[in-house]
Amino acid sequence: MSDLPKRVEFHEEGPREGFQIEPRTYPLADRVALVEALAETGLKAIQVASFVSPKHVPQMADSEALFAAIRRRPGVRYEGLWLNEQGFRRAQATPGVDLVGKIALYASDAFARRNNGCSAAEMRERVTRWLDLYAEADVAVEYALVMTAFGCNYEGEIAPQRAVDELVWAYRTCRERGVVLPKLYLADTMGWANPQAIRRLVGMLRDALPEPRIGLHLHDTRGLGPANVLAALEMGVELFDSSVAGLGGCPFAGHGDAKGAGNICTEDMVFLCHEMGIETGVDLERLIEAARLAERLIGRPLGGRIMHAGSLAGYRGRPLAHAV
Amino acid sequence: MSDLPKRVEFHEEGPREGFQIEPRTYPLADRVALVEALAETGLKAIQVASFVSPKHVPQMADSEALFAAIRRRPGVRYEGLWLNEQGFRRAQATPGVDLVGKIALYASDAFARRNNGCSAAEMRERVTRWLDLYAEADVAVEYALVMTAFGCNYEGEIAPQRAVDELVWAYRTCRERGVVLPKLYLADTMGWANPQAIRRLVGMLRDALPEPRIGLHLHDTRGLGPANVLAALEMGVELFDSSVAGLGGCPFAGHGDAKGAGNICTEDMVFLCHEMGIETGVDLERLIEAARLAERLIGRPLGGRIMHAGSLAGYRGRPLAHAV
Repeated sequence: MSDLPKRVEFHEEGPREGFQIEPRTYPLADRVALVEALAETGLKAIQVASFVSPKHVPQMADSEALFAAIRRRPGVRYEGLWLNEQGFRRAQATPGVDLVGKIALYASDAFARRNNGCSAAEMRERVTRWLDLYAEADVAVEYALVMTAFGCNYEGEIAPQRAVDELVWAYRTCRERGVVLPKLYLADTMGWANPQAIRRLVGMLRDALPEPRIGLHLHDTRGLGPANVLAALEMGVELFDSSVAGLGGCPFAGHGDAKGAGNICTEDMVFLCHEMGIETGVDLERLIEAARLAERLIGRPLGGRIMHAGSLAGYRGRPLAHAV
Repeated sequence: MSDLPKRVEFHEEGPREGFQIEPRTYPLADRVALVEALAETGLKAIQVASFVSPKHVPQMADSEALFAAIRRRPGVRYEGLWLNEQGFRRAQATPGVDLVGKIALYASDAFARRNNGCSAAEMRERVTRWLDLYAEADVAVEYALVMTAFGCNYEGEIAPQRAVDELVWAYRTCRERGVVLPKLYLADTMGWANPQAIRRLVGMLRDALPEPRIGLHLHDTRGLGPANVLAALEMGVELFDSSVAGLGGCPFAGHGDAKGAGNICTEDMVFLCHEMGIETGVDLERLIEAARLAERLIGRPLGGRIMHAGSLAGYRGRPLAHAV
């Protein structure tokens, strides 16, 4: 337990992940309400929407209107997702988007083709062009992320070295341009990770690139999400993508009926951190309220746990035996 | 990771936990079908039903009929739960119940009163009488379990020493009667445990009583269940109570709306073990089928994850990119 970080940062993906996976498009006001509620919890970065093909993801067709409608809270970053140059240009043209320079890579060719219409090697070429765009736009490059780092429904097992290679390539490519990448993300896009795989891959990545901070994008597809977070915390990982109420899932990850298997649940993992003495800067009670709002908006029970049970704060302060 | 056990045993609680928490009583045939499906998975011990007050738990009023209806599979133990002498006598009088001698204790007075109508100290006296009954009935004493070992909604924080003291008392009391207790269980009845608390309490218990095997009865009330299992595995714990599909919850645990927060999910945790190279003796695919049956019978989405996503076996053997 000695390598536990003192503080963990959660990057909230719920608004994009959650509404993108649902078959219907939710009213703009609902999505605004959730983003605004999340911004009141202490979370510092919220992925609001994606700038992707309205043909493939019609739920995100009005991302510009969504950003325009949000009442911004100072100190919070309102981010958007893009997977190609066109998407970045849309994000760039949208007032209210806090542009975060990132490059996305694939450890699986088959999923790259499915999600981006190109091979993993071609994706390297494409994101090289993104670096040009970021330089032109004066957008700092903050992280590289490699998808399907732990396994892929389309390709099967993924050798961990492939994920490391992509991130080493990203780090060196940025370095050659005078950019020191501060963060590297491993994404378990399809829920293949387990605690041993987390430890192995994080260890390999840190051996290869000791300087950047390491982050994880995890899905709780098969129930190992919280165990994977614990394994990562014990490796000193301090950056996690997560979704309020466990919202989300990728519509193209090939899970069939299970496409709704979302990210690790923000409030459950904030609770895990707090119980282990790790700071998050998040007000757990407010976050639980935001999760309950998400569930009301989506209109069916969501996978988060503590939102249903309540935190321990009330029971600690005033156990039921002493309640009037 | 060096202390990971080679093999883990799951004690299936779903049939009792699951049907006891539901407001309505399910047809006998449904409950029989689930028990029989579970017996085909490789699970060796199934808690079929409880012998408790039909007034307080009407769903378990027909436990005798349930045991009578089950087609038994050799090598599987079909168990019942009791919390007092009357319950044991009912179980004893019921053909088909595999009697397992156990004593149940409380680390919380307030919950003891709520669940058993006596203080924790009075519970010691009562279970001493159980030991007499077991001796008379020639039932071997297999374990002692302490409830609310990690915290209690009625009493608040529980000092870990209280749980250890109960089990030390149980071990010594059995020893004085010439019985060496082979197993000791810590129960996180209300979902207060976290990985550090698991490590601390398991460590304290093992220091106090190095001989018996240690088991955990965990609920996934606040989303830390899988992380708690990982922490326990790393402490060498090899015995877990769990529920298929994550069924269950205790109706008297004081969670209000969240009384459905069930045990850790058997098939998700079997998957965790298998992915980490730990044997369970369980056929994961069959267990997933049993979980899906449980969901169909209960008639609403249950909390288990892998039952919805499917295991990795199919994707490993035949990734989607190579499917016809």
